Amino acid sequence: MNSMLLNEDRLFPAEASTRKIARSLYEHVHNLPIVSPHGHTQASWFAKDEAFPDPAALFVQPDHYVFRMLYSQGVSMDDLEIGQPVVKEPRKVWRIFASHYYLFRGTPTRMWLDYAFEKQFGLKERLSEKTADLYFDSIAEKLKTPQFRPRALYEKFNIEVLSTTESALDPLKDHQAIRASGWKGRIIPAFRPDAVVDPEFKGFAESIAKLGEQNGEDTSTWKGYLNALAKARARFKSLGCTSTDHGHPTAQTADLTEGEAAALFSKIRGGKADAAEQELFRAQMLTEMARMSVEDGLVMQIHPGAVRNHNRLIYEKYGRDMGADIPGPTDYVHALRPLLKRYGNEKNLTIILFMLDESTISRELAPLAGHYPCLRLGPPWWFHDSPEGMMRFRELATETAGFYNTVGFNDDTRAFLSIPARHDVARRIDCAFLARLVAEHRLDEDEAFEVAHALTYDLVKKAYRL
Amino acid sequence: MNSMLLNEDRLFPAEASTRKIARSLYEHVHNLPIVSPHGHTQASWFAKDEAFPDPAALFVQPDHYVFRMLYSQGVSMDDLEIGQPVVKEPRKVWRIFASHYYLFRGTPTRMWLDYAFEKQFGLKERLSEKTADLYFDSIAEKLKTPQFRPRALYEKFNIEVLSTTESALDPLKDHQAIRASGWKGRIIPAFRPDAVVDPEFKGFAESIAKLGEQNGEDTSTWKGYLNALAKARARFKSLGCTSTDHGHPTAQTADLTEGEAAALFSKIRGGKADAAEQELFRAQMLTEMARMSVEDGLVMQIHPGAVRNHNRLIYEKYGRDMGADIPGPTDYVHALRPLLKRYGNEKNLTIILFMLDESTISRELAPLAGHYPCLRLGPPWWFHDSPEGMMRFRELATETAGFYNTVGFNDDTRAFLSIPARHDVARRIDCAFLARLVAEHRLDEDEAFEVAHALTYDLVKKAYRL
Amino acid sequence: MNSMLLNEDRLFPAEASTRKIARSLYEHVHNLPIVSPHGHTQASWFAKDEAFPDPAALFVQPDHYVFRMLYSQGVSMDDLEIGQPVVKEPRKVWRIFASHYYLFRGTPTRMWLDYAFEKQFGLKERLSEKTADLYFDSIAEKLKTPQFRPRALYEKFNIEVLSTTESALDPLKDHQAIRASGWKGRIIPAFRPDAVVDPEFKGFAESIAKLGEQNGEDTSTWKGYLNALAKARARFKSLGCTSTDHGHPTAQTADLTEGEAAALFSKIRGGKADAAEQELFRAQMLTEMARMSVEDGLVMQIHPGAVRNHNRLIYEKYGRDMGADIPGPTDYVHALRPLLKRYGNEKNLTIILFMLDESTISRELAPLAGHYPCLRLGPPWWFHDSPEGMMRFRELATETAGFYNTVGFNDDTRAFLSIPARHDVARRIDCAFLARLVAEHRLDEDEAFEVAHALTYDLVKKAYRL
Repeated sequence: MNSMLLNEDRLFPAEASTRKIARSLYEHVHNLPIVSPHGHTQASWFAKDEAFPDPAALFVQPDHYVFRMLYSQGVSMDDLEIGQPVVKEPRKVWRIFASHYYLFRGTPTRMWLDYAFEKQFGLKERLSEKTADLYFDSIAEKLKTPQFRPRALYEKFNIEVLSTTESALDPLKDHQAIRASGWKGRIIPAFRPDAVVDPEFKGFAESIAKLGEQNGEDTSTWKGYLNALAKARARFKSLGCTSTDHGHPTAQTADLTEGEAAALFSKIRGGKADAAEQELFRAQMLTEMARMSVEDGLVMQIHPGAVRNHNRLIYEKYGRDMGADIPGPTDYVHALRPLLKRYGNEKNLTIILFMLDESTISRELAPLAGHYPCLRLGPPWWFHDSPEGMMRFRELATETAGFYNTVGFNDDTRAFLSIPARHDVARRIDCAFLARLVAEHRLDEDEAFEVAHALTYDLVKKAYRL
Repeated sequence: MNSMLLNEDRLFPAEASTRKIARSLYEHVHNLPIVSPHGHTQASWFAKDEAFPDPAALFVQPDHYVFRMLYSQGVSMDDLEIGQPVVKEPRKVWRIFASHYYLFRGTPTRMWLDYAFEKQFGLKERLSEKTADLYFDSIAEKLKTPQFRPRALYEKFNIEVLSTTESALDPLKDHQAIRASGWKGRIIPAFRPDAVVDPEFKGFAESIAKLGEQNGEDTSTWKGYLNALAKARARFKSLGCTSTDHGHPTAQTADLTEGEAAALFSKIRGGKADAAEQELFRAQMLTEMARMSVEDGLVMQIHPGAVRNHNRLIYEKYGRDMGADIPGPTDYVHALRPLLKRYGNEKNLTIILFMLDESTISRELAPLAGHYPCLRLGPPWWFHDSPEGMMRFRELATETAGFYNTVGFNDDTRAFLSIPARHDVARRIDCAFLARLVAEHRLDEDEAFEVAHALTYDLVKKAYRL
Repeated sequence: MNSMLLNEDRLFPAEASTRKIARSLYEHVHNLPIVSPHGHTQASWFAKDEAFPDPAALFVQPDHYVFRMLYSQGVSMDDLEIGQPVVKEPRKVWRIFASHYYLFRGTPTRMWLDYAFEKQFGLKERLSEKTADLYFDSIAEKLKTPQFRPRALYEKFNIEVLSTTESALDPLKDHQAIRASGWKGRIIPAFRPDAVVDPEFKGFAESIAKLGEQNGEDTSTWKGYLNALAKARARFKSLGCTSTDHGHPTAQTADLTEGEAAALFSKIRGGKADAAEQELFRAQMLTEMARMSVEDGLVMQIHPGAVRNHNRLIYEKYGRDMGADIPGPTDYVHALRPLLKRYGNEKNLTIILFMLDESTISRELAPLAGHYPCLRLGPPWWFHDSPEGMMRFRELATETAGFYNTVGFNDDTRAFLSIPARHDVARRIDCAFLARLVAEHRLDEDEAFEVAHALTYDLVKKAYRL
């Protein structure tokens, strides 16, 4: 029983004729290289190429999908050693995780983990309290081998290109080191300016000053600030960057006159802006970023709609990204209008929209992307990067936006080992969706093969200009 | 390969026993006459009965579903000759369309077009760059024949009644001409007063004055204005009209006293009202229209929730209805309350609610229609007039509102050739939904036959009083 | 034809291999005892154990699901004798109901009723105008027999525990009588304080005074008011109560200082508070209730999001709970934050969240419950207590919150006879969902058996501390 963690037909519809179509579509795409245009792996892994320390540090400690579920069921964050620089008692942490593994039934986390356990570590019996030590020892042993170093895994995973996400202030030394090393892997940064465009970001004033120093501009003026940002973008671009990323609370944009914008910047810098002015500043900065994208060709990603650090106690004790970000209702139709009024018809602009509020897919996002030439829809993000979430996305978006206004898959992960698993789930779900269209005679089979290839490989390369 | 565009089992579930039930339900309804109670075809077509000019003018130029998708992928509106009085280079336009036909994969537009291509024009190979000229020539040739004149098509399509939508100011000469011609087709107008009840409508003041002249009333007074509207409704009714149609930005209603309403009207007429007062006026006018409906028996349709002309550049260059209307969140539960408080329990009133915001179906619309005797739910509209959209509507509405608080199908189209295709999709999806209920033993098969007939034919005639 | 109302495979997917799995899961759980932790049956039924009067009084008059649908289609509330102390012409009411039974096609009401008709009354031909009298006579006859008394039915239904919902002011005499009677049925009350925490509740001032008298506290002071509530909770607890229930218009919470809260209470008591202050008071009281729950261990249920008594005429003529409550958009992510900031990490606290706005499931509720240790998701409520609603809930919640942050099923009914039917539908849908996960190799079959058992029995007992 449970002799294998993964069935080769997983995620395909049970109905036999549809499953058969899904299988043949999947055959066609499952070996294509992985293009990973957006995510949160660390460039230092590939620069240093050191072994990952232990199973807990690899699978539990950095993965908020994992520890948020454990925390929700009463497991202590401290017992899991979350937020500690190193895991002191990895086997103890692993045993807690293993004995609660049943909590992940029905979640994508379970599917991603099982994939890594079986495909990377050859484990075939389900993780549980009983098998905890077997798992720990097997994984720990393999992690010491050269085949489990980051660069070897990158190659084993058949990754063609992988984008990390870096602060606009990051010196990008690891990226430089990777390039200097002569290794053939393609690791590129995405430009994430939140720290220098969001006045509510911790240390905003210092960051603005640092931005000026780094780029030889006087960021006490609006003009100098914009120049510094343009130079920082150019610096990223010189290291292969093709995209920017904007994680604002909302999708609000603005289109102030230069005078208004300069005055607002001055007030923001003085630390006297209220919440509405801070929001207006972020909004204006999205439009400024769009303008720069028209000029330098960087593709713009907008990731709005998370209420960050919802749990005050967790934030104060453990900091950001601790599984306590909760989505809220998100407006796109009014919020994006100022930016779109200004740049929405520019041929050279690509803006990829992400969402955490699924009610917007058929109501706002698909109609927007099905009209504006600059807009594309990013894949289901975060909580919706899941079999049901992906299927709903296709069902809700395709009839209005088609397939060609979407951009393939983003794994968007901090968990390096989950990358092949996540892409595999996305490929299977796209094939399952297409198989249903074929089985219901809504799409010809030859077309489904073309679309499956596009969703897996072509569209992401085109949209991200890779 | 691709020897036929349409499979006879299209849109039916793949599971064999369910498909068999769906087929037999569809057999029962697919030849029923088309009742088209709401749409945007032109009465002049049936009055003049002239040939359609060419394939581009028939399929591309008037259809915002088509050109919005092309525009979203970088095709120029000018190259498509959108907004031109005649298409100068129809073959060139057609070739652009044909070479981008793959963009419509997975969309209802593709399904509607394939239906027309095969059923009306006998085409059997898929439209593509390669087959562009074959299509153009075949269609162009057929359009010259008498069988492709509007009246002949109306009869071929087995239409029992077709409602156009006309401005309250329209003299209805085409409708009069149709009646005078002795042709047996039943073409009727719906009364659309947006131009004279929405202060934000272009030329509102002139329209109000014209309304007064046409109806022999002094529309500078609230009383005279209301009288003029009542007379205009009576004029429509005399030409077969059974319904009114209201395309407001929101579903807001109001219930002002007569004095308040008169004062608001005066301010509106004076051009001094702000946005909130304009909204309040539209809101009050919905309630006034409901009152008149109680009196004259016209069925009221409310189509709220579109942010019109979202793309400023497109609006300025090409005008309204150019594929740039985007839905937004829509409130019904609070917005309709003033009207419902006043007239919600009237036996003689029917209000058909439409939606662009699917999150309202199970939350607000089905509960409202499942209680108020005057309310009925219109079919999925516009972006949701699609296989997935229709299926979601049934899944979200039926358990609370049942089938009998819905009103069958509206094609709501400007594209005359798409009418049979759209009704066919609706019939197939309703049969597919009912087949699942039968296969899952949630409805007896004899009941499913009755319901399928009701959804196709009976409910629309009853709701629209046809 | 229609020789049986219920097929043994009802609600299972049609696809054969999936149906087979669903069947075997259902075999495993369908005989488990019913745990009913929240509902609106009447304690007096079990205290007095009298026969139900007649079919109309049992099935039509108390069931707003039934008469709201009839009213929506033009049936008069008076003809149904809604709101009358006794039904004077039960056969006439029954005939109206029977002749409109087709309106319930596709609704859960139909399924619940058919279950009761067949399983409790042995009826096998569908209810209709034709069978109205047969039904009436069969049911009326059986209702006179001892097997149809409330206590006998409780035992026949295999109920392990049943919670009623009682006002904080209720003397709980029926509950005392049940305990004193020696009957082994476990009927417990839930503590519902709306009448004494919601300033908009009819007779609020008198209720506050009465609360003081009952509990020997001076409720003219904030301190005395809180003490009285704590004592009332203790009184409920002494009769087996394990939960409180809060039916506020919104989920808004607040965290005022003691001084602010006392001042607000004083203003509220003086009857001078405006709508915003009334909302703030309800919000503060949710947080106070959470504090008391931390102290006394009562599980907190929040049922927000209904616009009550939407139809003014119906409310004025027939009162509350007359089928005219309509859901609206509901915010959780911001609304719950003040309470969660204060008590969200308390180990001893359980808050069960219910929803009427399905757009919140994947956006807010699953992320909240998948993080905060005190939060659990209640089953789909009211309009969503239905096959499609339950399936959507599992599809939308599971991938983020898993199964173990949900709490099994609530029947939440006033219709005693519907209890086994409702639990049966929930068990079948859970098995159908799990069967799909197994068929698609997303869950192992042995795990599905465990989860099915947990969803049916274990989770509800644990969450409600029964």
